Amino acid sequence: MDDMLETGRDILAKQPFSRVMQAELVAWSKTETVLRVPLNDNTQQHIGMTHGGVICYAADNALTYAGAAALGSGVVTSELKINYIRPAIGSALIARAVALHGGRSQAVCRCDVYDLRGTDEVLCATALGTIARLPSKPETEQA
Amino acid sequence: MDDMLETGRDILAKQPFSRVMQAELVAWSKTETVLRVPLNDNTQQHIGMTHGGVICYAADNALTYAGAAALGSGVVTSELKINYIRPAIGSALIARAVALHGGRSQAVCRCDVYDLRGTDEVLCATALGTIARLPSKPETEQA
Amino acid sequence: MDDMLETGRDILAKQPFSRVMQAELVAWSKTETVLRVPLNDNTQQHIGMTHGGVICYAADNALTYAGAAALGSGVVTSELKINYIRPAIGSALIARAVALHGGRSQAVCRCDVYDLRGTDEVLCATALGTIARLPSKPETEQA
Amino acid sequence: MDDMLETGRDILAKQPFSRVMQAELVAWSKTETVLRVPLNDNTQQHIGMTHGGVICYAADNALTYAGAAALGSGVVTSELKINYIRPAIGSALIARAVALHGGRSQAVCRCDVYDLRGTDEVLCATALGTIARLPSKPETEQA
Repeated sequence: MDDMLETGRDILAKQPFSRVMQAELVAWSKTETVLRVPLNDNTQQHIGMTHGGVICYAADNALTYAGAAALGSGVVTSELKINYIRPAIGSALIARAVALHGGRSQAVCRCDVYDLRGTDEVLCATALGTIARLPSKPETEQA
Repeated sequence: MDDMLETGRDILAKQPFSRVMQAELVAWSKTETVLRVPLNDNTQQHIGMTHGGVICYAADNALTYAGAAALGSGVVTSELKINYIRPAIGSALIARAVALHGGRSQAVCRCDVYDLRGTDEVLCATALGTIARLPSKPETEQA
Repeated sequence: MDDMLETGRDILAKQPFSRVMQAELVAWSKTETVLRVPLNDNTQQHIGMTHGGVICYAADNALTYAGAAALGSGVVTSELKINYIRPAIGSALIARAVALHGGRSQAVCRCDVYDLRGTDEVLCATALGTIARLPSKPETEQA
Repeated sequence: MDDMLETGRDILAKQPFSRVMQAELVAWSKTETVLRVPLNDNTQQHIGMTHGGVICYAADNALTYAGAAALGSGVVTSELKINYIRPAIGSALIARAVALHGGRSQAVCRCDVYDLRGTDEVLCATALGTIARLPSKPETEQA
């Protein structure tokens, strides 16, 4: 495993909510971010499909990693938009994100979220978001 | 407690992921939807703030309830956009959603998410989304 | 007319595309931005309703003014999301925007676009966007 | 020129606002939509860059065509989100859109907008939107 992926996994392991979600960083480089979130009884809504909040978590986190890869520093997600396309009913979500552009202060990133059904990946959502570089000095304000 | 709120709470109780998130439906009527999500060690990311996925869950779920109140039938969230405004570091998220318009096939809904700090509510995110009426006959497609 | 509104109108007058659109800045202050775009034969699409691009122009421009009022300096629109709610078939669009939050580097702004039908204003679209402060030194990059 | 492209151009020619914008439909098929919008003195804002409203017009229109190609019937744009990435300062906008998914009632479409600088296309914006099938019977409601 390369250093960047190892660093990314260390960060993920330090996120309590990502541990709750059992998320795994599968790949992380300048050109590719892949996050895997297993689906199980706990990730559903009331009619047996994956809850939108789970899909949104996967997209949010993958977008942030893609932005961090592009900006090369501490980042925070400014905003995102997600379209739910199909119900996720498989064994895991595979969120694949990439930075379309990394500027001085922010990156614009895209994420497709796939539903793993057996060995097939079916597109279940797509997201577009902005990741902002954190100011060098800490401040209380997020955006 | 009125019937509509009781119905809404029954639905929430049947959502396994909402039980994981310990979400509580505080109010639900044609004009007001309030969802409360407690914050704790499990809802954080790696630098001690609430994970964006938690905030997004709160917005997604409150938007869906607001859309269901407007459309009066089975619904599904088509899409949403969320802007994170400030870090959430308080004791709970209070998501307040309302339908701006309920049409024949979909509702456009807005949600402001507040961070409960002591007894103060501080705006930490705002979202805008589309809730679609489910077709009368079941189909595999979500959107 | 106060100085701020006058300044805002001067800027609008220097935007060739806003002159094409015949847009008028009706109000501009820290707390209120109102932009008026007249509707006529040239602003329609093929079935007699106002083209979405016209509505989006109104929202984009009003959001930018609201962000500039909050940030107090040169700004640029980073992104926006718009929901079209009803067809605009009246005599003008009235875009009302406000900053929900103005931070160090960006402002989150909301805009409701109304269709002026006689003397009634009917909500025809709603938008949510991010306005970024321009860096002090010019750079070629917009975002 | 094939029939579908010819039909698309006929529709565009019937849109007064698209005539104002001098937009040209370059390609239109199930898998590809390309819209070209020439840039000139009239399409600028006050500091010499293309107005965001022009870019948004291009994205909105290309998304709608991509959705119509996927849904095969009368459509209307429900909503879209656009990220402005770089200033457009070239001779034309080239908006390239595609449907990621076409369902029974709506299509989710993506659009990249390029700035034509000489013979180079530089990504200047990206958009994501939902295109809805119009109900078979006319109704006053757009969404």
